[in-house]
Order: sequence, then C-alpha cells, then structure tokens
Amino acid sequence: MSECLFCRIIAGDIPADKIYEDEEVLAFKDIAPKAPLHVLVVPKKHIASLEDLEEGDAPLLGRLQVVLRDIAREQGVAASGYRIILNCGKDAGQVVFHIHYHLLGGSPGLNLD
Amino acid sequence: MSECLFCRIIAGDIPADKIYEDEEVLAFKDIAPKAPLHVLVVPKKHIASLEDLEEGDAPLLGRLQVVLRDIAREQGVAASGYRIILNCGKDAGQVVFHIHYHLLGGSPGLNLD
Repeated sequence: MSECLFCRIIAGDIPADKIYEDEEVLAFKDIAPKAPLHVLVVPKKHIASLEDLEEGDAPLLGRLQVVLRDIAREQGVAASGYRIILNCGKDAGQVVFHIHYHLLGGSPGLNLD
Repeated sequence: MSECLFCRIIAGDIPADKIYEDEEVLAFKDIAPKAPLHVLVVPKKHIASLEDLEEGDAPLLGRLQVVLRDIAREQGVAASGYRIILNCGKDAGQVVFHIHYHLLGGSPGLNLD
C-alpha cells in the first residue's frame, strides 16, 4: 500500500469528497478549507513536487490548468474569480508530497495561511 | 500599440527586469515584490486569463510550469521551497489581464496579500 495520502485517496483506500475524476486527474475538497470553495486538483500519477517532474510530464500539468478552469466554472466561481496555488517545499508549507494545485474561490482575499 | 502592460513589456516598449526569455515565455521581476524572490512568468501569447484559454493552449501552460521550476532552481530557492500563484478575476485580485504565474520564494509565509 502506498504511503502517499493522495495516492491512497486516488486508490479509494481513504475517502474524499470527490468532485471531478478522469483517467489522469482527481479533484476533491480540502478537508480544512481556507475559503468557501477550496478544492485540490491532483494528477493520478505520483509526482512528489515540481522538483520531481519527469520528462514528458509537462502536458499533464497543462491539462491540470484546464481542469482547474473547468472546476471553477462548474463550482460557480468563474465570474467572481479564483486563485490557484501550488506549494513546492518547506518555505511554501507543502505538507503532502504529491503535486496538488489548490483552487480557492468564493470570497475576496484568497490565501492559504 | 497594445494596451496590455505585459504585451508592451514583451514587445520591449516598457522596461522590465527580465530574468528568462525564450520564444514562448518571458519572466521578469515583480516591481512590487511580496517576497525576497518575486518573479512573474508569462506566455508571450496574449491570453487574458484562464477563462480566455483557447483550444490548444494547454501545452503552453504545461511548459510554463517547467519554466517556473527551472527559474526556482536558477534563483536558488528550489531547496528552501517556493509558491506559485495564478490569480483569475476580481476575488483573486487579478490586476493585469494577461496570464501571469507569480513565483514567490526566499522566506517562509509566501502570500500576495
């Protein structure tokens, strides 16, 4: 069994409030939301951080940007606005080492900490 | 002449502290830095926001993630960590309507406002 929390969510071993899923991508609500809408969008492929990208991963990250846009629309924050945050490493407060884009929306002042 | 500030920087009409440039991407220092390292990474193609993506733009956004990673390394914040932020629309405080990823690093607590 994977020791990565998000890989376990992807595998279905740990429950999550999933709002989008396809072959390459999973999106689910953050369990400690910092905004009215706080979704995490992750690649199903385990990539620990941007520092661990492999050759050929770039198009997948490009697709994630489109999924983030689509989720913002579907969740009703496209018109009001939203912020996307990717934390890499200690100074950014990255806790789970599986790339996850935070999607924050639903109010002004969208910060993680 | 374009009315877009970042298009004018790309065209060379307005000076900027450029730190990386290739055929598709330009990176330059934010004039009002919110962290010891605060760089803006933009596509040279004018895309107002994620809401204005066209079919086929996704790979370009994927490439931007790799450029962000490379700049973080080159600027010496890869080991300490960095945060990437993309603002879309009013609630996120997007001011210039030309997609720009903020790269923040060099200290803990990396927020825009």
